[in-house]
Amino acid sequence: MAIIESVRWSPAGDAVRIIDQTQLPGRLVERDLRSIDDVCEAIGRLAVRGAPAIGIAGAMGLVTALIPSARESRAVFEGTLRAYAARIRATRPTAVNLPRALDRMLACAAEVGGSASNVLAALRAEATALLEEDRAMCRRIGENALPLISDGASVLTHCNAGALATGGIGTALAPIYLAHEAGRRVRVFVDETRPLLQGSRLTAWELSRAGIPVTVIADGAAASLMRAGAVDLCIVGADRIAANGDVANKVGTYAAALAAQHHGLPFYVAAPTSTLDPSLPNGDAIPIERRSGDELACLGAVRLTPPAADIDNPAFDVTPAEMVTAIVTDVGVFRRPFDFSGGRGDRGDRGNVASITSTTSITSTS
Amino acid sequence: MAIIESVRWSPAGDAVRIIDQTQLPGRLVERDLRSIDDVCEAIGRLAVRGAPAIGIAGAMGLVTALIPSARESRAVFEGTLRAYAARIRATRPTAVNLPRALDRMLACAAEVGGSASNVLAALRAEATALLEEDRAMCRRIGENALPLISDGASVLTHCNAGALATGGIGTALAPIYLAHEAGRRVRVFVDETRPLLQGSRLTAWELSRAGIPVTVIADGAAASLMRAGAVDLCIVGADRIAANGDVANKVGTYAAALAAQHHGLPFYVAAPTSTLDPSLPNGDAIPIERRSGDELACLGAVRLTPPAADIDNPAFDVTPAEMVTAIVTDVGVFRRPFDFSGGRGDRGDRGNVASITSTTSITSTS
Repeated sequence: MAIIESVRWSPAGDAVRIIDQTQLPGRLVERDLRSIDDVCEAIGRLAVRGAPAIGIAGAMGLVTALIPSARESRAVFEGTLRAYAARIRATRPTAVNLPRALDRMLACAAEVGGSASNVLAALRAEATALLEEDRAMCRRIGENALPLISDGASVLTHCNAGALATGGIGTALAPIYLAHEAGRRVRVFVDETRPLLQGSRLTAWELSRAGIPVTVIADGAAASLMRAGAVDLCIVGADRIAANGDVANKVGTYAAALAAQHHGLPFYVAAPTSTLDPSLPNGDAIPIERRSGDELACLGAVRLTPPAADIDNPAFDVTPAEMVTAIVTDVGVFRRPFDFSGGRGDRGDRGNVASITSTTSITSTS
Repeated sequence: MAIIESVRWSPAGDAVRIIDQTQLPGRLVERDLRSIDDVCEAIGRLAVRGAPAIGIAGAMGLVTALIPSARESRAVFEGTLRAYAARIRATRPTAVNLPRALDRMLACAAEVGGSASNVLAALRAEATALLEEDRAMCRRIGENALPLISDGASVLTHCNAGALATGGIGTALAPIYLAHEAGRRVRVFVDETRPLLQGSRLTAWELSRAGIPVTVIADGAAASLMRAGAVDLCIVGADRIAANGDVANKVGTYAAALAAQHHGLPFYVAAPTSTLDPSLPNGDAIPIERRSGDELACLGAVRLTPPAADIDNPAFDVTPAEMVTAIVTDVGVFRRPFDFSGGRGDRGDRGNVASITSTTSITSTS
């Protein structure tokens, strides 16, 4: 299965090569991020997006931005490192993966002796490890969630929690890729996901590219689609999950969860353990990014709203834990009442998770 | 209060003058519809839209399209009348107002003696009566629903059930205009209403033009806005209401009703009695228009979805009666269990409906 790579090193290793997701589905454009400005701009305007992917891109971008500082003194290098990490951290507030990845990079630097160039080499290895761990995590999430996708399943998803959002085959889409690979027939309905249309632009693009039948619907049509009996289950990603299992994800997720609950449909969240944030007791403590109203007001050069109207544009919402059937992670499946403290979930409905090893537990990434 | 007129006669009476709603909010463009092609095209591509407005525009357009036939024999004229009425009727299936208006025009023609030009004059008078009745109905709906809008109220609406959708001050927006006129502070949240953005383009335009504070949100943000306590009540229009009170309205209405129910918020439907269809036992019998996938796939020249993806684009959904707190009509307020057979609802929460007379009961318009 040829899945796209949304974030990787450039061949020379001097840049982070990303797929510019703002250009999809019209054009497949790759961009090389080198400077700190490149990196912050690409994350800020969602050229690279998705909680796992921005963690990886942030860590890798920190490395490429620091290349010109490799000949500085260790003290100067570390000052620049801290300043750059702070700038990258400030680009987007909701997903926990980004600060987690940056904390891990800073901890790595603190543990390395020697020159700036020693530290840089260690940081490069750490960022590469983050990327490779994410790839492995995606596959484990897919394996753990695979029993949920039976032959003939009709799955609703929201936004894009696919290959474009991660270093691997995605989170919510991972079991769909694996089910398709295993010969199971699966149909995906995807909310277009206003305002930035990650569903119609990105999820529809990567699934149809893989030959998986996908139908785009308006966000407002999901509830009536469920009422009509066309959906078997919902599966979405997550940007941050609080200790009690409350899930922050793209705005509109809560509405989908409400509709799923009303229609008696299972509502699954698929996310790596790096998305779990046990430091927050519940979803009320998750910072919700409010983005520019222009995302709703304009599309390209077309103005959609009158200038006199206000616009409220929260990028995320919180789905309370009681509406979540299960949270599928790389270390297993967690069910209500959620308790992530052991760092290990159930081994899935059919125990088809022999390959799981808890190499990346919650504590090791925090 | 200067409210725009979305449908009216041109000064010479030879055309239906409409505001071309596909051009809003960018440009306020009026168009004169004369031929049967003009009329069908304008209704079909939603240049004129809204259940009451398309009924009126259809009836008035039938008149202007028949002007060239006024010198024909009565038999030839009536053949053209039937053919044109059938063409207009086929433009849009969901709202009952359009077939109702056309049936009324055909019944009018059948009752008139004399020449084709006699019939045409009677049809013009009938279409004018429809327009004027609609204006009066809007005001009565507004008066009946006014007690629901207390000072400081925060109201969520979906799509556009305003002046642009009717011959008067709207249905769902009518009490908001009257509350504003009465000096009550009212804030409106409006779903942008994908795919055609009637909320952000039209409702935001006409409310902000009237000086009423309006905030546009993504459709998917309504549920979390309710969860945050920012909404006091919901009020929407309707395209057709079945005998049991099931309501067909713009897709996404059902999702909003689900969220309102979950959060304990009242969910009101405001509609003229011409929207009631007692011939249909429940919402399952309401035909739901499926529109072109291009409405989701493209915006202007911008392609939003990959060509390989399917698109499902139902224009309407059905909200079951048990989720509707009350249906506010021109003849009063109906509450569950809905019984429209008497043709008269309650006189509203505060009885401020002295001006209501049941000149347009359900039976007289059917």
